[in-house]
Amino acid sequence: MEPERIWTAALIVIGDEILSGRTQDKNVAQVASWLNVQGIRLAEVRVVGDRTEAIVEAVNALRARNDYCFTTGGIGPTHDDITVDAIAEALGVGVVHHPDAMAVLTRYYEPRGGLTEARARMARVPEGAELIPNRLSGAPGIRVGNLFIMAGVPHITAGMLDALTGTLEGGRPVVSKSVGCWVAESEVADLLRTAETTHEGVSIGSYPFFRDGRVGANFVVRSPDEALVDRCVADLTRDLEAAGKDVTGGGI
Amino acid sequence: MEPERIWTAALIVIGDEILSGRTQDKNVAQVASWLNVQGIRLAEVRVVGDRTEAIVEAVNALRARNDYCFTTGGIGPTHDDITVDAIAEALGVGVVHHPDAMAVLTRYYEPRGGLTEARARMARVPEGAELIPNRLSGAPGIRVGNLFIMAGVPHITAGMLDALTGTLEGGRPVVSKSVGCWVAESEVADLLRTAETTHEGVSIGSYPFFRDGRVGANFVVRSPDEALVDRCVADLTRDLEAAGKDVTGGGI
Repeated sequence: MEPERIWTAALIVIGDEILSGRTQDKNVAQVASWLNVQGIRLAEVRVVGDRTEAIVEAVNALRARNDYCFTTGGIGPTHDDITVDAIAEALGVGVVHHPDAMAVLTRYYEPRGGLTEARARMARVPEGAELIPNRLSGAPGIRVGNLFIMAGVPHITAGMLDALTGTLEGGRPVVSKSVGCWVAESEVADLLRTAETTHEGVSIGSYPFFRDGRVGANFVVRSPDEALVDRCVADLTRDLEAAGKDVTGGGI
Repeated sequence: MEPERIWTAALIVIGDEILSGRTQDKNVAQVASWLNVQGIRLAEVRVVGDRTEAIVEAVNALRARNDYCFTTGGIGPTHDDITVDAIAEALGVGVVHHPDAMAVLTRYYEPRGGLTEARARMARVPEGAELIPNRLSGAPGIRVGNLFIMAGVPHITAGMLDALTGTLEGGRPVVSKSVGCWVAESEVADLLRTAETTHEGVSIGSYPFFRDGRVGANFVVRSPDEALVDRCVADLTRDLEAAGKDVTGGGI
């Protein structure tokens, strides 16, 4: 049997506001969750500042070794929005005003004071690009080759992801199920390792926490093969119970 | 006058749980804010999975081109905690049980069932490493060369950062001040660009939002030179008011 193809994506989060600590990123988690539903695995993320060289380096490294590469941030109308120019530079192409984007923005800004030069910046795309619809705020996202250029504001990105749902080729989504246990993870480390090695194809993550004065952990079993995940969860639950531990199916 | 030295750091967030979307990262923002107080700029972040090659590649790329390189995640007692081994591999050194860490863990686990082999894993460090105290949960962080290896659980990382406060050489902290304005950023794009170019040494970020049915933006002026930031904020406020905009000092 041929090994199952794993489709991967990278995400580049662009913005000084993330690196300064001013803004808590929310795009990594939402893009990751969305990708998983498409059967695509988020393989790596980079956060870079609003600097052309940093964006070019990240784009060229990550688009080459992943099926898809997403960016968030830096596509607005102001001087610090340099994503489109940096990506065009990375691809070695020019920047053009996309006619459909001009039409969308003209309509959007007609009752809002008109399409100024600054606003028309948001119609600029790398040559050869297509648009990703944005139902929320006019300025569209951009697709060029395997690159997907999206907004920094999380709810606008959510709308763009929604427009892309079902359009990208992927494999089977990863299924993950949790087993919660009121235990210090260090007490059951051997048992977890055994559960992983005896169920080839799963990965098990162990995520400890402190809550209500008690120590616990969630063990998350992941694989694209749901039947395998279920067998592993059943065996792990049985082994934890046999060791006298307090287990909660589905996680705590 | 010699140009002011900028001290930089990189952060590598290690963990499948971030890339799967299961866990919302909180370490980027907290490390970024802490670094800024130390006069060190967070220059780049990578998020990688629990895979040796990915960790080795990121560590070697980022420690070489930054003054400091921090990692979070993957230093617990279970099979998916591979950070120490991967970093030792990146550095080309062996892994040893640090005697002080063994002593700390022995004391910590004495009333908790004793120091098992799994727990003793948390005393393993790359050869030549020092410890970073962890007052919260026993297992220490690790410093080796310009690498700082910290926990994934944000409040434990916070404690480790606290222990490092004031011990790293840095420059002047970046000062940032905000000007809030009930305006679509696209209306004032030219004015912002002018404010940045006429105050050499500042960067101005523009962060739009939608709130209570209204469009607004915060303009964040950043520089290590506080007097320069103040002059830029005053000029920008004056220009926005002269353009008839509704300005809120300190941001909205």
